[in-house]
Amino acid sequence: MTAAMKDNLNDAGAGLYEAIRALPIVSPHGHTAPEWFAEDRPFADPAELLIIPDHYVFRMLYSQGVAMEDLGIGVPAEARDPRAIFRRFAANWRLFLGTPSRGWLEHTFAHVFGIESPLSPATADEIYDRIDAALKTPAFRPRALLRRFNIDVLATTDGALDDLAPHAAFKAAGEPTRLIPTFRPDAVLNPAAPGFAEGLSRLAEITGADTASFSGFLDALRARRAHFKTHGATATDHDAPDLMTCWLPKDEAQALLTKALSGEIDAAGSIRFYNHMLVEMAEMSVDDGLVMQIHAGNRRSTNQAVLSRFGRDMGADIPHAADWVHGLNVLLNRVGNDSSLHILAFTL
Amino acid sequence: MTAAMKDNLNDAGAGLYEAIRALPIVSPHGHTAPEWFAEDRPFADPAELLIIPDHYVFRMLYSQGVAMEDLGIGVPAEARDPRAIFRRFAANWRLFLGTPSRGWLEHTFAHVFGIESPLSPATADEIYDRIDAALKTPAFRPRALLRRFNIDVLATTDGALDDLAPHAAFKAAGEPTRLIPTFRPDAVLNPAAPGFAEGLSRLAEITGADTASFSGFLDALRARRAHFKTHGATATDHDAPDLMTCWLPKDEAQALLTKALSGEIDAAGSIRFYNHMLVEMAEMSVDDGLVMQIHAGNRRSTNQAVLSRFGRDMGADIPHAADWVHGLNVLLNRVGNDSSLHILAFTL
Amino acid sequence: MTAAMKDNLNDAGAGLYEAIRALPIVSPHGHTAPEWFAEDRPFADPAELLIIPDHYVFRMLYSQGVAMEDLGIGVPAEARDPRAIFRRFAANWRLFLGTPSRGWLEHTFAHVFGIESPLSPATADEIYDRIDAALKTPAFRPRALLRRFNIDVLATTDGALDDLAPHAAFKAAGEPTRLIPTFRPDAVLNPAAPGFAEGLSRLAEITGADTASFSGFLDALRARRAHFKTHGATATDHDAPDLMTCWLPKDEAQALLTKALSGEIDAAGSIRFYNHMLVEMAEMSVDDGLVMQIHAGNRRSTNQAVLSRFGRDMGADIPHAADWVHGLNVLLNRVGNDSSLHILAFTL
Repeated sequence: MTAAMKDNLNDAGAGLYEAIRALPIVSPHGHTAPEWFAEDRPFADPAELLIIPDHYVFRMLYSQGVAMEDLGIGVPAEARDPRAIFRRFAANWRLFLGTPSRGWLEHTFAHVFGIESPLSPATADEIYDRIDAALKTPAFRPRALLRRFNIDVLATTDGALDDLAPHAAFKAAGEPTRLIPTFRPDAVLNPAAPGFAEGLSRLAEITGADTASFSGFLDALRARRAHFKTHGATATDHDAPDLMTCWLPKDEAQALLTKALSGEIDAAGSIRFYNHMLVEMAEMSVDDGLVMQIHAGNRRSTNQAVLSRFGRDMGADIPHAADWVHGLNVLLNRVGNDSSLHILAFTL
Repeated sequence: MTAAMKDNLNDAGAGLYEAIRALPIVSPHGHTAPEWFAEDRPFADPAELLIIPDHYVFRMLYSQGVAMEDLGIGVPAEARDPRAIFRRFAANWRLFLGTPSRGWLEHTFAHVFGIESPLSPATADEIYDRIDAALKTPAFRPRALLRRFNIDVLATTDGALDDLAPHAAFKAAGEPTRLIPTFRPDAVLNPAAPGFAEGLSRLAEITGADTASFSGFLDALRARRAHFKTHGATATDHDAPDLMTCWLPKDEAQALLTKALSGEIDAAGSIRFYNHMLVEMAEMSVDDGLVMQIHAGNRRSTNQAVLSRFGRDMGADIPHAADWVHGLNVLLNRVGNDSSLHILAFTL
Repeated sequence: MTAAMKDNLNDAGAGLYEAIRALPIVSPHGHTAPEWFAEDRPFADPAELLIIPDHYVFRMLYSQGVAMEDLGIGVPAEARDPRAIFRRFAANWRLFLGTPSRGWLEHTFAHVFGIESPLSPATADEIYDRIDAALKTPAFRPRALLRRFNIDVLATTDGALDDLAPHAAFKAAGEPTRLIPTFRPDAVLNPAAPGFAEGLSRLAEITGADTASFSGFLDALRARRAHFKTHGATATDHDAPDLMTCWLPKDEAQALLTKALSGEIDAAGSIRFYNHMLVEMAEMSVDDGLVMQIHAGNRRSTNQAVLSRFGRDMGADIPHAADWVHGLNVLLNRVGNDSSLHILAFTL
């Protein structure tokens, strides 16, 4: 592309940006923890803010041979050396050329922290100090950032068992941002999820429903969705690793639930039960109006060594083709003609 | 894109268009009914012309919650209110922003009907009246439109049992357009098609062949292809919902045909028989020179409620990946090295 | 695209090209025979150089009805008429409009042979004579071309049983190019490959290992990899037609090897054995540092008539979707966290 063409494109992009830059932000999938805003504690240091929680950043470094532990992953906070982590990151900054991560971070350095020097091994300490100093000021506390960035609505993602106390606490603080939860019930819908039976016991305690009976289980889920709505939720969020929705007779659903609770369900049974539950969720969405968000096409935690040492969501997810056409067929044929259903399908 | 870049692209497109705009049109897949041109009756009203038969238009509206019946779908002609349908369509015109349907319709309004006002709820009645008045004039009768648009060849798609009388009648009228049929035998090749056995009885009556014998069935198909060629056909057209061509020994083909006629064939047998018949069609194409058109990758009539109430081709088809490589393997290994075979593969 | 836009793009491309045109060429996958450079004999004639070995060229002509034999394919050298082949090619030159083959050949004519007349039936003889005359001069001998094009490194692809004598002979000649082999062991890893058992006998003779024992077989492979490294190899190369790596217990691997040697292994067993051997290759790559190149997504030799008459690599390969995510799962979970492993995944 010539400089003239690039100028033209930049002009066009700048025009679009000028038209929207002053609008408030509505963030429907914010990847933030509600405790940040409920407690409003300062972020600890640049590494804890920018590197340790960002699997796009540390996965790139790991793929090039940097050990996860050397980036502070899986290391207790008190045992980390955040400046050493930041230097290591700066020493590998060239790896991020052309990645969205680099664009985001350059924007953050320049526009959030006002840093003009480009990141490099030579500037790593100076930049670390600038960010670290900023994080200790009131202007960089979580709530102050919500105001500064004009965040009108911020949705978090929360487990079905969460009490949503941070959301309530934040609401009581009277901030201008609306912090809303999203109902993410995977762990209590999928028998293959770790701790499924314990989750259903806890669900029974919270709701008073008999979650060993399939109809009681559905009642409990309805109660939790209502609880989320009370705290402002507008949507649910579902991972569909083996998307192929199906509709089971009630007695088969009950039989699978019973097996799941006793730990006797096999892999195929778990998949079948979960795929049925997605249709139950869609039916509940028709009833309560929560938008149903479905994520398919992601094979998660493919690296078994990383999974066993560091857990989930550590940058070892890989996209694959999702068959939405066959996968949603049963769901849409049950509830898809109802004009009150809203589904968002996310793919990768 | 800047205005200057857009101008450049528009200039380039305009140049291409100028170079070809005066050429006659050869339309190999016209989506028109031959009766229109044989009978040359006026189109009834704007809704019957532009909305009711266009599943791209009504499917968009249905997807946003407009009932099919409110658009006249599945409603007898005498019970429809075409002006109300057109108003409803105009009220939702914004939904079509950025769609090919909007481009086509805007072109139609401006260049076919000479209407300059943009469609909106406020102009709906005026535009309806302009189109309705035009449709009542001789210049908007089907044959007049063929001449106006300089249609040199127009191919229709016709069932294997069709007598092609409309094509003969139109030819006798001495119009400049060549209206040719396309041989679409799916309904008599696929045991899973509704009315398969009845179709083969009718095929026997028409051709005098014994369609209960596999070799007689092939003779009957050859006879129908010859009939189509006599009426100007240059191609056949095949839907291949489960494309995986295979070649059966004659006794297996006969056994499946016998089961199909008695209604005892199962789904797998139907798929196998049909996939074999595609290869027979390819061999006949080598013999008679008809171009073989194959459509794969379309999962049809996915919405069961729409299918049962309104029938096929109601905008509930969804593309999926077609495996052409494995799917055509047997066919191509039987006839693909014959330089007289011509295949057109359509995907979505 | 307008002329101005095209100019802009061409300017940008020219700038990139100017910046790199003088750099030496490192060709990691050269599609050349090492004997060319070891023996340094002249290329026979324009057809043998440009048409007969290039399946992109003859496959295009065959697809349009030109017989393979009329292009010299499968015809002994002494029975070919190279000028007639070149004329036939020139007569069909229009078919290559817009193909990479046309770009490459136009570049070759203009910049390698200095021919300015465009190829056409009228210029076919003149161009044939120009190329033929050039091929008879020392400047167009294989080694001279390596020097002219500033080829720093050229990698060939060689079977596991090859003695690599041509590489040694070329090295002894003291040319500036580094001609290195690549270890391509498919034929001795895949029980479904023709001559698998004979290959393992030969492998035993060469290495002194007992290739009927699985551990001896692995030793033999390690020995051959070492032999390749001695001759400069930096990589291995693997076709993975059914990529789905797995890890077998040693006794199962031994049982499959025994069946493979006696010809009793079935198709599923061959696939399983080969998919296991890919993981063994990855483990050896961790040990010896050879980069592992994997080609998946290619369905080879789909045209059975062409395969039986002309053999493999005759332009009858078709890309299909390769499932790298599941296919490499076992391999990467065994060795993917080792920072010394380097894999190149090729797809189509």
